Amino acid sequence: MSDRKWNVAVVGALGMVGTQMIKTLEMRDFPVAELRPLDLADLEGTEVDFTGRKVRTLAATAENFAGVEIAIFSAGAAASLELAPLAVEKGAVVVDNSSAWRMNPECPLVVPEVNPHDLQWHKGIIANPNCSTIQMVVALKPLHDRARIKRVVVSTYQAASGAGRLAFEELGQQTRDLLEGNPANPQAFSHQIAFNVIPQIDVFQEGDYTKEESKMVKETQKIMGDDSIKVTATCVRVPVFFGHSEAVNIETEQKLSADEARDLLRSAPGVRVIDDPAELRYPMPVDAAYTDDVFVGRIREDFTVENGLNLWIVADNIRKGAALNTVQIAEQMVVDDLVKVP
Amino acid sequence: MSDRKWNVAVVGALGMVGTQMIKTLEMRDFPVAELRPLDLADLEGTEVDFTGRKVRTLAATAENFAGVEIAIFSAGAAASLELAPLAVEKGAVVVDNSSAWRMNPECPLVVPEVNPHDLQWHKGIIANPNCSTIQMVVALKPLHDRARIKRVVVSTYQAASGAGRLAFEELGQQTRDLLEGNPANPQAFSHQIAFNVIPQIDVFQEGDYTKEESKMVKETQKIMGDDSIKVTATCVRVPVFFGHSEAVNIETEQKLSADEARDLLRSAPGVRVIDDPAELRYPMPVDAAYTDDVFVGRIREDFTVENGLNLWIVADNIRKGAALNTVQIAEQMVVDDLVKVP
Repeated sequence: MSDRKWNVAVVGALGMVGTQMIKTLEMRDFPVAELRPLDLADLEGTEVDFTGRKVRTLAATAENFAGVEIAIFSAGAAASLELAPLAVEKGAVVVDNSSAWRMNPECPLVVPEVNPHDLQWHKGIIANPNCSTIQMVVALKPLHDRARIKRVVVSTYQAASGAGRLAFEELGQQTRDLLEGNPANPQAFSHQIAFNVIPQIDVFQEGDYTKEESKMVKETQKIMGDDSIKVTATCVRVPVFFGHSEAVNIETEQKLSADEARDLLRSAPGVRVIDDPAELRYPMPVDAAYTDDVFVGRIREDFTVENGLNLWIVADNIRKGAALNTVQIAEQMVVDDLVKVP
Repeated sequence: MSDRKWNVAVVGALGMVGTQMIKTLEMRDFPVAELRPLDLADLEGTEVDFTGRKVRTLAATAENFAGVEIAIFSAGAAASLELAPLAVEKGAVVVDNSSAWRMNPECPLVVPEVNPHDLQWHKGIIANPNCSTIQMVVALKPLHDRARIKRVVVSTYQAASGAGRLAFEELGQQTRDLLEGNPANPQAFSHQIAFNVIPQIDVFQEGDYTKEESKMVKETQKIMGDDSIKVTATCVRVPVFFGHSEAVNIETEQKLSADEARDLLRSAPGVRVIDDPAELRYPMPVDAAYTDDVFVGRIREDFTVENGLNLWIVADNIRKGAALNTVQIAEQMVVDDLVKVP
């Protein structure tokens, strides 16, 4: 990286992921010239902390993108569909954390450990994948490179924070209410989340799969650059604050022993292997929370198919699943001199 | 059933499952002549409620099986290995809820909806399967009969009560402690269970699979009477009080559409289909708790294999997963005139 610094807007700056994006920019010492937090007009003037200073939030309007070079978005799909093109028109490259642009063939969908090369063909908007997909592909990429993954069966255990701040707060408040003998009164979730699991994330679509489940299928293929990888998913919300977990069963073309998989994962970027059954050590959301790595453990050969493996993959859904990956994309673009609208 | 009544011992009468066994005998109007609650010698004299009366608990010793005709056990594998043969010697038939006898070729392993015929060859001890296996085979049996299941990939979401009363209480207390800002201090579980998931149930065995995972493999084959069914499992504890959930992916020999599977399950004994995505209705542990059925929903065709289906299966682990199934076995034996040691 040169000494050049950049004007960076964070759109959705006051949300759960936006807040973490600003923290991540600071923690990773991203070369920020000006930080411009943008959010709803009603919230204009709200101050955020950045490198020891207070910075006033502005309304996320087209005018307020003036002078912005990099705009990282976590404001939902509707806001992104409207505002991202306006930001690009004003000369900013956009890294967007919503689902709005992910499957658009004009937009790269990037996990820097997996497909940084896809940044080369960006046209102004780069999409950040869904949280549950990011952690899975970080772990699967080195195995795919060695043994070619043919099929993935994944069941998720996803944290409440993945549904946003209100959902996160609802888990805490509802848990208190139930322990005091009061009713659950769900608002952010369709059903009680405290002491329960909900086998639905996002809306239902074709084949009675949820949108979250479809994302895991399509985004995995796009990021890996291989439409022949077959994925089937069941996505489930669990009463955990931070950290998505995934039970992942894979079938590979080439044989891959559990030991080989462990070795490949130990040297993979962004991965930490925690797999010591004798010491009862394996990845868990409470340990992954507030960390940056993708944790992999419970690596076992599955003898019910010719070349099968079971894995257990955990990561902080707000960090690697969202804010961190977005900032890593921006970092990679700086390194590769791609911060410009073509 | 004739009007004959039976002397019934419940061994481990004061435990979580034992308590439910006594309730279940009462609720289902099992023809009990004398109820004999047995537990640790230290607890002798503790009273339990049965049909409006108080019944004193006795020590679980060989002598105290005198006159017992049916002994239902939920006292752990070690106690069962020692006491079940003594009970049989005294003339009782034993229905045992521990893992002690399940894979013994001399002992039938029975889920009454699936393999009641296996009771015919009992030699005194009948084993009750593991909770996570019971609910899965109840749902899979009608699909297997129609389309032959070749392979099962299952990920579980298992309630704290499956680990016993102390574990159940730990979830409540630890949740309170954490919400008050105190440390988790795990005792019954190896790790924090509140607001966490633990990808380990029971001890680790060969291939780094846990005993719980191996049970799901071997018990499924024995109950279904078909060693060609391949099962691979990942068993996970979640912060739920009652109700195990399972994400189950199956591959069948014959094609089975989601609609056909739904129809087969709707007419299957012990199964309740809840599968209405438009109304956001699917099985959840809070709804399954304190009920007797095995709930199945999220039924979707899986197009990543030729004949694939995804299912979501939930049941009360203490009822159908333990106490209820045990009492149902005893009921079936009464109906089939099998309450005698051959």
